[in-house]
Amino acid sequence: MLNIVRRRTSQFINCAIKQFGTVSNEVPLSKDRYQVKRNPYATVADSDLTHFEDILPNPNQILLGLDETAGYNRDYFKYVRGLGEVVLRPRNTSQVSAILRHCNRRKLAVSVFGGNTGVCGGSIPVFDEIVLSLERMNEIESIDEYSGILECEAGCVLGKLEEKLNEKGMTMPLDLGSKNSCQIGGNLATNAGGIRLMRYGNLHGSVLGLEAVKADGTVVDLMSRFKKDNTGYHLKHMFIGSEGTLGVITRVAIACPTAPTTQNVMFLGVANYGSVLRTFLECKKRLGEILTSCELIDSDGFDCCIQHLKRPSPIGEFPFYMLIETTGSNSSHDEEKVQDFLEHALSTGTVGDGVVTNEPSKMEDLWQLRERIPDGTFSNNFCLTYDLSLPLGNFYDIVPAMKQRVGHLVKLVCGFGHIGDSNIHLNIAGDELTPEIQQLIDPFVYEFTSKLKGSVSAEHGIGLLKPKYLKYSKTAEAIMLMQRLKAIMDPNGILNPYKVIR
Amino acid sequence: MLNIVRRRTSQFINCAIKQFGTVSNEVPLSKDRYQVKRNPYATVADSDLTHFEDILPNPNQILLGLDETAGYNRDYFKYVRGLGEVVLRPRNTSQVSAILRHCNRRKLAVSVFGGNTGVCGGSIPVFDEIVLSLERMNEIESIDEYSGILECEAGCVLGKLEEKLNEKGMTMPLDLGSKNSCQIGGNLATNAGGIRLMRYGNLHGSVLGLEAVKADGTVVDLMSRFKKDNTGYHLKHMFIGSEGTLGVITRVAIACPTAPTTQNVMFLGVANYGSVLRTFLECKKRLGEILTSCELIDSDGFDCCIQHLKRPSPIGEFPFYMLIETTGSNSSHDEEKVQDFLEHALSTGTVGDGVVTNEPSKMEDLWQLRERIPDGTFSNNFCLTYDLSLPLGNFYDIVPAMKQRVGHLVKLVCGFGHIGDSNIHLNIAGDELTPEIQQLIDPFVYEFTSKLKGSVSAEHGIGLLKPKYLKYSKTAEAIMLMQRLKAIMDPNGILNPYKVIR
Repeated sequence: MLNIVRRRTSQFINCAIKQFGTVSNEVPLSKDRYQVKRNPYATVADSDLTHFEDILPNPNQILLGLDETAGYNRDYFKYVRGLGEVVLRPRNTSQVSAILRHCNRRKLAVSVFGGNTGVCGGSIPVFDEIVLSLERMNEIESIDEYSGILECEAGCVLGKLEEKLNEKGMTMPLDLGSKNSCQIGGNLATNAGGIRLMRYGNLHGSVLGLEAVKADGTVVDLMSRFKKDNTGYHLKHMFIGSEGTLGVITRVAIACPTAPTTQNVMFLGVANYGSVLRTFLECKKRLGEILTSCELIDSDGFDCCIQHLKRPSPIGEFPFYMLIETTGSNSSHDEEKVQDFLEHALSTGTVGDGVVTNEPSKMEDLWQLRERIPDGTFSNNFCLTYDLSLPLGNFYDIVPAMKQRVGHLVKLVCGFGHIGDSNIHLNIAGDELTPEIQQLIDPFVYEFTSKLKGSVSAEHGIGLLKPKYLKYSKTAEAIMLMQRLKAIMDPNGILNPYKVIR
Repeated sequence: MLNIVRRRTSQFINCAIKQFGTVSNEVPLSKDRYQVKRNPYATVADSDLTHFEDILPNPNQILLGLDETAGYNRDYFKYVRGLGEVVLRPRNTSQVSAILRHCNRRKLAVSVFGGNTGVCGGSIPVFDEIVLSLERMNEIESIDEYSGILECEAGCVLGKLEEKLNEKGMTMPLDLGSKNSCQIGGNLATNAGGIRLMRYGNLHGSVLGLEAVKADGTVVDLMSRFKKDNTGYHLKHMFIGSEGTLGVITRVAIACPTAPTTQNVMFLGVANYGSVLRTFLECKKRLGEILTSCELIDSDGFDCCIQHLKRPSPIGEFPFYMLIETTGSNSSHDEEKVQDFLEHALSTGTVGDGVVTNEPSKMEDLWQLRERIPDGTFSNNFCLTYDLSLPLGNFYDIVPAMKQRVGHLVKLVCGFGHIGDSNIHLNIAGDELTPEIQQLIDPFVYEFTSKLKGSVSAEHGIGLLKPKYLKYSKTAEAIMLMQRLKAIMDPNGILNPYKVIR
């Protein structure tokens, strides 16, 4: 009955661990690349393996040796490489609990592994941490179409959940390019955002309950299935976005909206940033409740993308392009709203040119113009990418500022992203990343963001790559509070060490 | 330009502290009524008052003596009465910080006071706690219509914020009957729900940032203005719903949707609970993105309400009534969707009769049939009220079960509430609340809810009245984690003592 119109999958981040072969020597070890010193954890002994075999009796629940564990020691982006020689794949919460209880007692460090689609090295071991992979905990426990609630295990792949929900006329409140690999537990652990956030809000709003296992093996059952539950502290939020450092999320209850049955995608050309802002405001007013995404692309990012895709532009040349999506429940109503918005935008001159479609393949084509930009920029020898939240008034300022600093030394500086969520991606690409270029970029981006009280990691999290930049978006008091929380949740520091806070 | 159609205000909970005169002797002191033993805090000395005078130099920032502080020692519902003789009314965060630093050093207990619209005695002193009232911190700092963000101080009254937002075509994501008294800081501290939750989600989703002061006076600045900010632990959620026991919320940044310009209200008669569920599912599908509220009223609650209001029923007699509201951005689109839904519901027989209107006064009249039920039930000599979240499959079972237990001993057992959020209010009213009746009700309601893994306090929180019922909705591990959090945030236990966890 429902017409599920979109399967938006970027080649760029739609990776699966199966794609990895043995670890390439080309990727430097994280410990060397990021100069990490090993904490004095124990190392895995034969007696530990015997114990793990007792906990995990089924075939292939334990992988041993760097050959078998290669896919768990490296990320898709080649940012990180670890040396974890033990991978444990529990099938239920009791097994997770028993594993952690043992590791905590023995002071064995643990790296928590989901779908391996993160971009900050948050789920890959740095040294010889034991890898705890949730992939076998992938059962959908219930889908209730009346209350709109999904309950499942943490290892469920996002795309599978979407499929099952679609059968009942429901949809996941989040959608990511990596949906065919990423797991819902990892989505929660990283507070994943994605392209529906503007419409359905973030996971702190959508997640009704979760179950997590603390470092000492204690199972904390917070599996509320209710939108309203004001009984004491709202503990589940501690785990959402903590990147596996405060506990391992094992089960999830999530509020899922009624699936929309209609969709429209517009691709617009805009003459300047002032008009971009006016267009955004106008689409909020005129599209109202059907507005789902509002994306900005600058001309450099756009040109790079169409060259990479070897496709012509659907419209004339403009300094800025906007991609606006609506989803709703009545196609003629939606089309009227879209036409009204477009007529207004074109007649007032805020938009110079544009196309609109509700044909699935054409919508997909338009979305590729936004989603494949990273593929284009990453096809250069080097590409630095920053994921920033900035106030809309200064949203695009970082791009000309960066061009002025390094434009003559690199091939490309471009900005694009979710303007509807104040989230810009700044990519800088070229032939050779010299120390000179790096130094012109790195402190500047963070200081620029910090001055505007922006976020130095909007969607991507902190992981292994960004702990030293935390100070640009978090006050000393907040970082101290984080450390206090870590200390009570994981006093031995065995969970995802070297990540988020060091 | 915008037509702000609803000003929904229940006489029942639209209270202001100014309504209180001196404390009536009729209301027993909380310490006696709930058998609370005073913790060994210090008592206020003259030197403390001198210190407070230094911190708060402006007139009327300090109120002294039970006459002056009467309004801060009693709640509207006459559940609680305290003996706080010192009320402090800071004007900024620095003053809050200085007050708490001093109180913490001196081990003086502090009760945090907002708009005094709570229903669990969470903001009223139990003994001689110092009352910290946020009422003078009521400045709106900024409203950004582009990004849709409001920044303000915690003492701002919700209704005032709504007014100011409406002027810019925006709306608050929450609406409460008490909006002309309640303060946004208190809304956050209690994670207030309300009648728009189904549409705009809860405060954990809407709040972008906050500033809070810890018990020791440390200011924790978490004033992010971004929907996406994944830099470290999401600390703000610790304060949301912690009822002032982990810190005092002083400033807020909140995402505010574009205000709808159209509204429809339906009032429907339904023959049985099965049809109620089918109607709910159908309205989610057919009304889609414009569905804002879906409320259930049983015939006993309804009859009590119309008798109290001395008004005829707008439709024939039914076992159940549903009130469904839509809001949107295009009146003809909305009306078409509403008509389509109604035609389907009436032709398939899931709905027996109904009225629909978009006239403001008539919509208000229909809403009164839902919102004034408590007024009716509370006009009895006694009325016990329970605020439960229950799975929709068993949502209404508690009402016939309770009727069977005490129906012959009381005048009224009725159920009504936000079926769209799985939140039912169970009210039991009569002439005299004997220990026999109380015993038949009190453990039963909580045990019934606990068996279904429901929430024993959906919207209202725990406050002073419900700590002993926490165990019915929270596991031992979760309660232990709450205690650990309390210990690191407020080691001397000075903030809102006796509330939430004892």
